[in-house]
Parts: sequence; C-alpha cells; structure tokens
Amino acid sequence: MAEEQLSRAPLISELSLWLSRLENRSRPGGGNSTFADRAARLRSFMAAGDIDGLLIADLLNIRYFCGFSGSEGLLLAQGGGMTLFVDGRYTVQARQESSGVNIIEVTDVTGGLLEILSRGTVKKLGFEASGLTYERYLKIRRGLSDGTEMVSLSCDIDGMRSRKDAGEIGRLKTAASIGARALGKTIESIRPGMRERECAALIDWNLVMEGSEKPSFDTIVASGANSALPHARPGSRRVEAGDFIVIDYGAVFEGYHSDETCTVALGHVSGEHRRIYDTVLSAHDRAIEAVRPGVLCRDIDARARACIEDAGYGEYFVHATGHGVGLDVHEAPRLSKISEQRLEEGMVVTIEPGIYIPGVCGVRIEDMVLVTTGGCELITGMPKDLMIL
Amino acid sequence: MAEEQLSRAPLISELSLWLSRLENRSRPGGGNSTFADRAARLRSFMAAGDIDGLLIADLLNIRYFCGFSGSEGLLLAQGGGMTLFVDGRYTVQARQESSGVNIIEVTDVTGGLLEILSRGTVKKLGFEASGLTYERYLKIRRGLSDGTEMVSLSCDIDGMRSRKDAGEIGRLKTAASIGARALGKTIESIRPGMRERECAALIDWNLVMEGSEKPSFDTIVASGANSALPHARPGSRRVEAGDFIVIDYGAVFEGYHSDETCTVALGHVSGEHRRIYDTVLSAHDRAIEAVRPGVLCRDIDARARACIEDAGYGEYFVHATGHGVGLDVHEAPRLSKISEQRLEEGMVVTIEPGIYIPGVCGVRIEDMVLVTTGGCELITGMPKDLMIL
Repeated sequence: MAEEQLSRAPLISELSLWLSRLENRSRPGGGNSTFADRAARLRSFMAAGDIDGLLIADLLNIRYFCGFSGSEGLLLAQGGGMTLFVDGRYTVQARQESSGVNIIEVTDVTGGLLEILSRGTVKKLGFEASGLTYERYLKIRRGLSDGTEMVSLSCDIDGMRSRKDAGEIGRLKTAASIGARALGKTIESIRPGMRERECAALIDWNLVMEGSEKPSFDTIVASGANSALPHARPGSRRVEAGDFIVIDYGAVFEGYHSDETCTVALGHVSGEHRRIYDTVLSAHDRAIEAVRPGVLCRDIDARARACIEDAGYGEYFVHATGHGVGLDVHEAPRLSKISEQRLEEGMVVTIEPGIYIPGVCGVRIEDMVLVTTGGCELITGMPKDLMIL
Repeated sequence: MAEEQLSRAPLISELSLWLSRLENRSRPGGGNSTFADRAARLRSFMAAGDIDGLLIADLLNIRYFCGFSGSEGLLLAQGGGMTLFVDGRYTVQARQESSGVNIIEVTDVTGGLLEILSRGTVKKLGFEASGLTYERYLKIRRGLSDGTEMVSLSCDIDGMRSRKDAGEIGRLKTAASIGARALGKTIESIRPGMRERECAALIDWNLVMEGSEKPSFDTIVASGANSALPHARPGSRRVEAGDFIVIDYGAVFEGYHSDETCTVALGHVSGEHRRIYDTVLSAHDRAIEAVRPGVLCRDIDARARACIEDAGYGEYFVHATGHGVGLDVHEAPRLSKISEQRLEEGMVVTIEPGIYIPGVCGVRIEDMVLVTTGGCELITGMPKDLMIL
C-alpha cells in the first residue's frame, strides 16, 4: 500500500467514484446549509470560550465540519471562515467533498498551518486535546510566535456531533438496513460445523454486497463458551447444536456506522440458556422504554442493570449499556453507570445489555435507537425474539 | 459493539481461542527469550538517554515489548522490570499473552500508572511523543509529583521494531503466503462485469478463508481510469476488457501484516499500457537489486524514480518507493526521496513504484523484501510479469 506522496495530486479524486453513487444528493455529510449550520455552532462555541482560532485535527471532526474525508488534513476556524490544509494527494478530493472552506494545498499540513498562524491574526488558539498527539502539539507550539497562546479543549467538539440532523439520521437508517439485509442472508447460511471465522467472513461479504462501504468494525461471531467473551475474535471453533451465537456487526453508509447485536441459538436451547436470553431481552426492552429527551444516561444503564440484577445475573453484565453512534462507531454520549450526560432529541445511541457466564455462554442484544420528542424510534431492524436456527 | 466494561474480567481470555492455533509454539510476538532481548534493548536505550522510567503507550509497541495485544493498556519500564496496566476486560488475556511483565489490573490505566509513579521511584520519565494524545499527556503530567520530570522522545522506539527477528520474519512470510493463496483464488474468479467492490470483497473473503486474521488494510481494487488513483476506494465500476486492475492487499498472521500490489490486465493490453507496465516493473526490479544493508533508503527511491523518469513518466510517480512492514502495515524505515535512514539486515520493506496517468490508467507493482547480509530476499509470492486475465 502506497504511503506518502511527494509532489502533485492525481487530477481525478478518489471521491468522484464514491460520489457517483449519490446522484441527486448533496455533499456527503450534509448539504451546504448543514455545514453552514455546523460552522455557526462552532463560531458560537469559540465566542463562548473567548477563542479567536480553533484547530480541528480529529479526522472525523474535520469531516463533520466541512465534509472532507481524507486520511490527513487540518482544519482551522478563525474569524468567520475555515481553512482546510491538505497535501497534494487530497487537493482534488477536498475540492469535491468539502464545503464552506478555503482549501490550501501544502507539502506538510502542520507546516502550512504554522505559516498561516505566523501572520499573527490568531491570539488564542483552541485545540482538541484528544485529537492531537503530544508530538504534534509540540511541533505547533514551538512553531507559534510569542503572540499566540494555545488552549486545550476537552471533548466539547465531540459533543456537538451527538445530536444528529436529518441527513445523518437518514444515513444511519440506510446503514442499519444494509446491515439487516446482510445479516438476514448470512443467518440463512449458518449451519453446524461452520467455523466462527467463516460466519464472520460471510457477514462481511454480504455487508459489502448489500452496499456497505466496509464492515463497521471487526465483526464478532462468538459461539458456545466463546459467547461469554464480550469482545471475542471470531476463531476456528465450529458452531454446533445447543450453542448460542453472538453476532455483533454493522454497516457503513456515507461514513455513518450501524451497530447491532443478535444472539441466535443453533438447534435447541436449554432452559438455563432461555432464561438468560429472556433476562437480557427484558433488560433491553426496559432500557429502550426509558429512552426519551432529558433522561440521564446513567439512569438508562441502571434500568437495564436492575433487570439483570433482579434475575441474579448482576455480576455477569460486565460492560456499559450503550453509546452514541455516527461517524464513529463509539461516540458521545456514553450510557454507563457513571455517565452524567442527558439524552437529547436527535441523539442516536445503542442499547446493548448482556450476560456473560464464563465457560457457559453469553447473550448480548443490541439495537440502535433515535431519541425523539416523545421517546425513541428503533433504527436497527433485525427481530430480537430468540431465533433458533 | 460493547464499549466499556465496568467490573470484573471474563474468566476465559479471548486469546485462548486464538492461541489454540499455535500449538507447540511460543507466545505470540516471540518466545520469552525474544521479549527478554527486547527488554534488554529497551534498558540500554533508557540508560543511553539517562531515563529511569519509560512509558510505552502505543499499543503496537506494547505488543512488541511484552506480547499483550489488547485494545487498551500502558506499559512502564523502570529499574530492571516492566509493569503492564490493564483494566478488568484484559487481565486474563494479559496473563496469557504477555511475558516478563508484572500485570496490574486497574479501573483506569492512567490512574493506575500515576499511583505507581506517586511512589517516587522514577525521577525522569521518558514517553513516546507520538504515542500519547495531548489530553493523556496532560493528565499524567498533572498527576505527577514534583519530583518526577517528563521527557518526550522521538520515534526511536518505533525504530527498534524495524529490524525483524526470526519469529517476526516467519510470521511475515506466513502472512504473505496466505495473501498469495487468497489472491490466486480471487484472480481466477475475476470476470468482466464484476464491480471493483465485489472483487475487493472476494479478496477479503479468501484472505480470511486462507487463515488471515483480517485484511491487512482496506483492500484496494482500482480498474480502468480509477487505477490512476493511488488510494482509490473500490467502487461500483464494473471491470471491463482493456482495463488495468490495481490490486493492493495483504493478510495478517499473528499480528504481522503483508502488503503486496499486483496490477493485472483484463482481456487485452494496448501498446501504451504495456509500456507503462514494463517501466514500473523495471523500476521495481532495479530498486530491489539495490537493496542491501548500508544503502540509504533515499537511494533506493532514487533508483526506482530514475527508471520512471528516464521513460518520461517522472511526474506520474506521486508517492514514495516503499516503507517498513511488521506489526503495523506502515512503519519505519521510509523509502522516500528525503529519507536519510539506511537499510539494515533484518529490515522488511516494500518496494512499490507506480505510474498514475490521470484519466488513463495506473500501474503499481509491490513486493515485500527482507534485507539480508548479501542483498535481499523476496517475501511476497505473486508473480509480477503482466498477467492478462
């Protein structure tokens, strides 16, 4: 795989291919008005923080604020405008994808940024502390003139992404429906004797054939005792009758991720397995019932957790109940025991309680929901009643 | 996909599945003696830099120095020993995978580190400037007692990984041979009318079926005019007679990546296309002939570049000639125009010249080679004479 490019940009953008699928649509990530709205929010944020320059280095945040989806770049907001620094590989792509920004082609994006900043128009430069390595921070700080101060910001910028607009919700729904079609096809093919890894590869294949850009993350297929490992890697174990199979997977559409988990049974189900499944499903349903604007994220977690504790499995629910999903598969808000965030209309979050009994079996049931005025709407589409294959 | 875990670790490690494939082998990443050797090199490095503590935060470096491959952790070298901080999700995995370290299970790895450092045994704490976000750096710095100084290091630690030992070379060869089998199978199936995305999905499927943990990176299949984009994403274009198809792909075996590019022709080849192909192949061959210990990386690049310039295509070779490969698909050394590094015995690098003529076609030919005492040895296995499918 080629790494660095040295001089000129190719004259055709990679993205032209990708955009060809989007006939009659606006730019990826939203139309011009969407980007204008986001830029306006960014300006308010800067005004509130008394910052006259804001450096955005996280690539997903760059994509969110201007549409550019390349693998390297820096975005600088100052005054009323935004400047996107890219190297020659990405100039054409940046022109095609991005909106509302002045694009500057440079050999080195950090160097280009410093050159602009050397003009001294920015006195207080905010930056994302989580989006910059210390190495890059140092390079920028050392290159700044004495008149410019650097101010690290917490994750407020990530927070801006948590409420989705109509375009984002549409993309998330499309990703989820691609995922459901792919999983539906895969489940029809699962037979005793198939290896976990083969099942995962089949899901990945079906995801792409149904229109996913790629799998949303490393697909999890965990069977039998392996299902008790929340983050199992699909291995060489062959699925067999009596197994629970945890399938955690997702699709990507125009940069937006889906995330869903189905636990299915193969052949037959023991009474204990059924009891575990029903407990998780009940926790899942109770948590979803509680989703509405204003509710504390930790209260959603507590509700799922209480169901599982009441059934005597409390110690086996070893992770948080959910998280936001969007340009990243894990983003704000967090639905954990300690999360002080509140749900807001337009957030899209997962609800995914689980029970994992070491050496025995595990069950996780996960849906994505959109927080609406009156409660929530299901985004993912696979049925969650226990399927016995 | 479940994100955070809150309390106890599952009692079975994810890795036990994975390790089951490695009968009669030692730990992933090397046996105990390998890790002991690496730890000794690390201690020399610390002594040379007058550092009495070294924090390793880059996950691939953590894996390199102790074998642990989880998605979160911190490694602290101090005195004669190393301490690995993991949360409850990874305790069992860390015990199974890692060697020569004291494992401490903590709720928060940064907090755990600070607790140990508060004992004041480390006066000068080195850290990888490129492996730490500014946010984490700040959290650590603020948590340190006044008696401990933090010293940022450049990429010397990454440099340690560039010379591969016998175990690593074996893994890279296995990855490459898995890749060649997968690509061989895929090439047999490519027919006019298939979409690029379908070809890529087929490669990914075959990679996993042949034993790859996953694709080494997002597989590139770029056909016709798209082949002129070095980093094209496989799209909906259907391959057709007269196309060049650039296929850039790789396998992963025990964490080690392969990286190979074949450009194949479909149906027939025009004279100009053939001339471009032959030029790239000649650049590839000339560069490989020059690989031996002691040679400057930029001289290898210059040799490939000269071939392409002599044929009149100089402006169309828009990236560097190669890079190191190992636990990461792109790592030290860089074989670019400006690289001052020298090749050393045991390095594994790609040689991948290309010509990209916008709107017309592109060709890239890539192999991985191992630098040996007398020259080099080919690691990747696909033939590079032009194949016409």
